[in-house]
Amino acid sequence: MRPDMNMNTSVLGIVGGLGPLATVDFLNKLIHLTDAKCDQDHISWSVMGIPQTPDRTTCILAKNDVPFEYLSSAVQVLNQQSVSAITIICNTAHYWHERLQAESKAPIFHIADSAINALSALPKRAKVAILSTRGTLIAGFYQNKLLNAGFEPILLETIGKQEDMDECIRLVKAHDVEKAATHCKIAMDACSVAGCAAVIMACTEIPIAQAAMRDIPHLVIVDANLELAKTCVRQFKRL
Amino acid sequence: MRPDMNMNTSVLGIVGGLGPLATVDFLNKLIHLTDAKCDQDHISWSVMGIPQTPDRTTCILAKNDVPFEYLSSAVQVLNQQSVSAITIICNTAHYWHERLQAESKAPIFHIADSAINALSALPKRAKVAILSTRGTLIAGFYQNKLLNAGFEPILLETIGKQEDMDECIRLVKAHDVEKAATHCKIAMDACSVAGCAAVIMACTEIPIAQAAMRDIPHLVIVDANLELAKTCVRQFKRL
Repeated sequence: MRPDMNMNTSVLGIVGGLGPLATVDFLNKLIHLTDAKCDQDHISWSVMGIPQTPDRTTCILAKNDVPFEYLSSAVQVLNQQSVSAITIICNTAHYWHERLQAESKAPIFHIADSAINALSALPKRAKVAILSTRGTLIAGFYQNKLLNAGFEPILLETIGKQEDMDECIRLVKAHDVEKAATHCKIAMDACSVAGCAAVIMACTEIPIAQAAMRDIPHLVIVDANLELAKTCVRQFKRL
Repeated sequence: MRPDMNMNTSVLGIVGGLGPLATVDFLNKLIHLTDAKCDQDHISWSVMGIPQTPDRTTCILAKNDVPFEYLSSAVQVLNQQSVSAITIICNTAHYWHERLQAESKAPIFHIADSAINALSALPKRAKVAILSTRGTLIAGFYQNKLLNAGFEPILLETIGKQEDMDECIRLVKAHDVEKAATHCKIAMDACSVAGCAAVIMACTEIPIAQAAMRDIPHLVIVDANLELAKTCVRQFKRL
């Protein structure tokens, strides 16, 4: 952007493509949350779609740091464009959030902060299940932030349903949303039986599967991607 | 992108946000056309979402060249990122295509070439209606390219339905897709009655309205945005 244009317009930097459908889902949510009557009322964005980034969970499990290089490169390009804030459309990638923030002039929103913010109406010590990749669980930030907010984090592993979640996420990335939805339902039903008050869809692929689910259990279902979009719209003063 | 990463990955540059929903529609089409089993099989993209660009039609009618400055700025940022090719998700903005190409190292696809390419099965001299903004009509590139391809371009103005198209486009930008669909249907029905063999949805908002239409007339309906996505996927060798 030329400097004279940037003066009037804040640009939201988006690190996306992780996977690509999740970024489209985020943009859709961002657009529909914006109070706009015409194009010019919308938020300006710059999106770096970097699907070639190696699988985050695989790398975290192998103690391989290569995804950081891709994420860092995208964050640098966005900073060169003087974006006002950055958002990363992938929960697992937040494993590197602190290091990315350390080298970014623009603030980088944290998706878990947005998600947990949406639980404020729940009673303290409520059980909240984390639906996510294994990488996100190892990263540990959801557990820590839930504990800090006074909730009891529940891992699918402890109720025997992490494998369904792995399948759900893999199938969304392979465009088989219908089959993904059946695995999503198995996991959510088990959370309900285990006494959870809420589940956080803490992987940006899950809401795509959940939207195709019929017969949804009685749980507070938090879409971290939607909450992140709300944070962005609020920040850009349009909500 | 760091140079060592760019060596292995072609990046598609996208000028979007004109309007934002049309860009989401394009990305969705691009993703679903890509033969991918995992994130890493997808095309990498860099999207400049510049919704603040002044209304293209209004400016063309007023002989105001300001949109060129915005488009040019986005094209320059994408060139700085060494993208392999650029695509502009707005038909009307192609009024400035030639000038943008002149200052861009990366080739810029032309949406009308993609759209007209999809008509190759039609007989010569077939009537093809252009559903578009008034700005696109004044720009004249659809008429010229249709004539060069041996077809007879039909303007909605001549069958009294351009105002319905203006309303359709305005309503999509204001998120009222259902009402937009009724205006889209009126225009398409009139094209059918006027003996058109095909219509080109030559504004990226129209397919969003058309998807909400019931009872679609017997016409070849070309979605310029979809054809542009096909061109991009073909170019990036994934179709």
